[in-house]
Amino acid sequence: MAPTSGRSALRRFETEGGAWWRTSISDVSPGRIVIRGRRIEDLIREAGFVETLAWAVLGRRLGPVEVRLLEAAMVAGVDHGPRAPSIAAARMAVTCGVTFNSAVATGINLLGDYHGGAAEEAMRLFDRLASDAEADAAGDLAARAREAVREHRAAGRPVPGFGHQLHDRDPRRDPLLALVRSACQAGAVAGRHLRAALAVEEGLRAEVGRDLPMNVDGALAVVLCELGFPPEAAKGVFSLSRGVGIVAHALEELSQGARIKGPCPPDPALVRYEGPEPER
Amino acid sequence: MAPTSGRSALRRFETEGGAWWRTSISDVSPGRIVIRGRRIEDLIREAGFVETLAWAVLGRRLGPVEVRLLEAAMVAGVDHGPRAPSIAAARMAVTCGVTFNSAVATGINLLGDYHGGAAEEAMRLFDRLASDAEADAAGDLAARAREAVREHRAAGRPVPGFGHQLHDRDPRRDPLLALVRSACQAGAVAGRHLRAALAVEEGLRAEVGRDLPMNVDGALAVVLCELGFPPEAAKGVFSLSRGVGIVAHALEELSQGARIKGPCPPDPALVRYEGPEPER
Amino acid sequence: MAPTSGRSALRRFETEGGAWWRTSISDVSPGRIVIRGRRIEDLIREAGFVETLAWAVLGRRLGPVEVRLLEAAMVAGVDHGPRAPSIAAARMAVTCGVTFNSAVATGINLLGDYHGGAAEEAMRLFDRLASDAEADAAGDLAARAREAVREHRAAGRPVPGFGHQLHDRDPRRDPLLALVRSACQAGAVAGRHLRAALAVEEGLRAEVGRDLPMNVDGALAVVLCELGFPPEAAKGVFSLSRGVGIVAHALEELSQGARIKGPCPPDPALVRYEGPEPER
Amino acid sequence: MAPTSGRSALRRFETEGGAWWRTSISDVSPGRIVIRGRRIEDLIREAGFVETLAWAVLGRRLGPVEVRLLEAAMVAGVDHGPRAPSIAAARMAVTCGVTFNSAVATGINLLGDYHGGAAEEAMRLFDRLASDAEADAAGDLAARAREAVREHRAAGRPVPGFGHQLHDRDPRRDPLLALVRSACQAGAVAGRHLRAALAVEEGLRAEVGRDLPMNVDGALAVVLCELGFPPEAAKGVFSLSRGVGIVAHALEELSQGARIKGPCPPDPALVRYEGPEPER
Repeated sequence: MAPTSGRSALRRFETEGGAWWRTSISDVSPGRIVIRGRRIEDLIREAGFVETLAWAVLGRRLGPVEVRLLEAAMVAGVDHGPRAPSIAAARMAVTCGVTFNSAVATGINLLGDYHGGAAEEAMRLFDRLASDAEADAAGDLAARAREAVREHRAAGRPVPGFGHQLHDRDPRRDPLLALVRSACQAGAVAGRHLRAALAVEEGLRAEVGRDLPMNVDGALAVVLCELGFPPEAAKGVFSLSRGVGIVAHALEELSQGARIKGPCPPDPALVRYEGPEPER
Repeated sequence: MAPTSGRSALRRFETEGGAWWRTSISDVSPGRIVIRGRRIEDLIREAGFVETLAWAVLGRRLGPVEVRLLEAAMVAGVDHGPRAPSIAAARMAVTCGVTFNSAVATGINLLGDYHGGAAEEAMRLFDRLASDAEADAAGDLAARAREAVREHRAAGRPVPGFGHQLHDRDPRRDPLLALVRSACQAGAVAGRHLRAALAVEEGLRAEVGRDLPMNVDGALAVVLCELGFPPEAAKGVFSLSRGVGIVAHALEELSQGARIKGPCPPDPALVRYEGPEPER
Repeated sequence: MAPTSGRSALRRFETEGGAWWRTSISDVSPGRIVIRGRRIEDLIREAGFVETLAWAVLGRRLGPVEVRLLEAAMVAGVDHGPRAPSIAAARMAVTCGVTFNSAVATGINLLGDYHGGAAEEAMRLFDRLASDAEADAAGDLAARAREAVREHRAAGRPVPGFGHQLHDRDPRRDPLLALVRSACQAGAVAGRHLRAALAVEEGLRAEVGRDLPMNVDGALAVVLCELGFPPEAAKGVFSLSRGVGIVAHALEELSQGARIKGPCPPDPALVRYEGPEPER
Repeated sequence: MAPTSGRSALRRFETEGGAWWRTSISDVSPGRIVIRGRRIEDLIREAGFVETLAWAVLGRRLGPVEVRLLEAAMVAGVDHGPRAPSIAAARMAVTCGVTFNSAVATGINLLGDYHGGAAEEAMRLFDRLASDAEADAAGDLAARAREAVREHRAAGRPVPGFGHQLHDRDPRRDPLLALVRSACQAGAVAGRHLRAALAVEEGLRAEVGRDLPMNVDGALAVVLCELGFPPEAAKGVFSLSRGVGIVAHALEELSQGARIKGPCPPDPALVRYEGPEPER
């Protein structure tokens, strides 16, 4: 019933000797900050920022080719200009006079299921296809991928990670996939999810009758899958990636000095009221 | 008067030919994403994530020693355990059933003037001291720093970037400052702000009569000043840094499966009601 | 495919003569603010706050008994103490030094699918049961409700709007349902959704073997259904309701003056690190 | 020094017997929710929503004329159309696929010092003028108000609560001030802050040489001052007021079904890139 999860949390707390917060990530006491068994002093000296992200989330040391892949995928999503809702909202927030972190949070709060969020669903799809293809000795990845495309279309749902509002071919696709291919050749990643994603791309072409190439969400999904991230991590990683553009644009807006800047210019035609007129 | 900023924004819009959003950061059109003059394809291939952050914000290519410094400063702040408000709020948000990015945004929304926000004020202080020392031929940095400490204490304000609630000596101070020193020796940074920060630390010891060493905010401020970031950028950079821990902890909480998890255990003593009792 | 919704928005914009934002809610021009056909001057003079909420959302003037119902349902949810994540997060935000509205937003950002969000799902359930019972000449509401309970239990999902982590009988249930009953007797609402909700409550008792009475989410769902709100409105209305407690607690925390106040006291037992120890 | 506030919070916790959260607002235990001494059952039956807001914040029962005033002030700010950043950001958030409460939080997160936030500063100004006028036997309110206007102008700061980007005369001013005047005549409020605000308006006219009438922030400030709210409450109350429009517009946007809707139409002229061109 409704409160079972809550009650089981309470029960776990009571039976487990009083630890309200349990974590395998960090241990903090006077003079000491340990992250998954490594002292912060050592991380500061040894690890890059993106490596530390993987360490904190996965508890695994990425090799240099893996780090390169993750860096590239996070560079790819940093910015899409002031017409992206995340960027625009952060710029608007700055003109409203909030503390700067709240402007950043405002931008990140917009990175939901649709805006930068398709990577999570794409990861689930690629993961399922990659696993099915292995489980099934006669696994025909192409057929399964095309079937998945058909299912999405039949349900009226977009296939996550393909196509783009603006770009016929997302300029971030090719350089990212080239890096994944290199990493496969170097033996750093297995390439199972890359193959699944390319099979979906091919299936889409066959079903739709024209190219709908992988977009940045799809390519990010490939990278995160190949590195072993869980799908739930995708929105988090993308938040940090787009966070770069959000911070840069928010600072630029701050330097321009506008106050209470709305989303679009004061051209009356841009907002149309379709409700009733007042009687007087 | 009140609306001048707003009106001047409108006027600028009208007189400048209709660009509502003006940016030197990014140019996006079909098939093309350019960030401060570099194509996203090139950034993906050439630049690391932290380099790209500096490129987007400063429009300057950092050298490898500078990148190393910025990486280290961003690694330093990633996590401070579930007792940090930013981490706890993100974990709580996850148990309330929001889209994951909103849990991340919740954590970042807490990184205000006090929580991770002292770096901005510290940057202003270090910058002023470094500039004054140069401007003044007879500039006695030590005397100026001690005077600044006295002013803060007289006004009842903490000296930003020094002392810590938990740590007598913040374990992130020494490795970060060691890297700044190395970067000075390598000629990658000038060291002006490092000297100013150390002078404040010395001034605090003299005024307070005991050590109040630089904390992570202070050390981050030194790094950002030395790299040429404006003070307004500090909360943004720290948001991305702490964002790593926020993402990791939010994922861990999600995997634990609790629902509507409050801040502290259900021990009645931990919340005390001090209002009136109802009459019946 | 993926971007169809985006493309259709663009197409609609282009074919409909350039209105980027279309709204039936408000019309604003110099000297004029009209909300669904009523001037703001008239609303200020004539309408209460909760009436105006219904007017803005539904475009319908509620009668006095309906207003009373909505007021009561919004009073019911205002506060659940500092152990509620929404309240605690707002209090924590205040101690972190953000602009006050951001502390309010932090609290509201936690009112997701589980925390205060069950009303939406409950509305869908009550609405379906009420409609089915009418559609079916031989509609046996009790049987349908019990079947719905069985389905939820079989799927391992809580029945939304019933049971509570803390309260065996939520003290907000009885006074709210009494008001709904009075409104039925006065002919102000039809009572279809009240009957559906009570049937679910009865079905739960029969299936579980003990009482799991309606909680505040369930009672709010009954009121909003009876008044004609769409289920999607539930989280919005609850955000404003709980917003009262969030504002009050955030102000109290501000007056107490703590800085960077974590979620629970500094008792080491309350946070347990379960990761590896550092080697040195 | 820096952590004194934090340390004093810890010390207070330790010496006061272990209450981490202290509140005079609410007391919650199984079967019991008490708000400032009144059971939630009684509030549900007796109190309106806006009354309950005042009760939770002030711990004072407002009389009917006072309730009317607060309702009117909260009605006044509900909406300013999709060109207001708060409304636009919430609508954009909905199209990005977040849980609905996060769209509401996004809108509220924009109500900072400039956007709806001037009421707080106006309250401080009116409060100071009202107190000074009383303290000073020969208190010349008009002279003091004009002096305050001069000070703001000399410092290049807008006088908070006067003038508007769009409206020459804010249509919300007159009906709100008329209600305050009636409340004065009824003896429900003292009118000290109304007089102070009108003196500032007169001082502005004299200094600027044209009318800059009170805006909705200024009128809200008068009402909140007259009712005894502290200035810090202003952003909180306005968040709930504008929350109505945010909820209504977010629901409308949801019903329109657009995905990832940016702030302005895809007219290239509306975003101008001013950075360098790529070399190739």
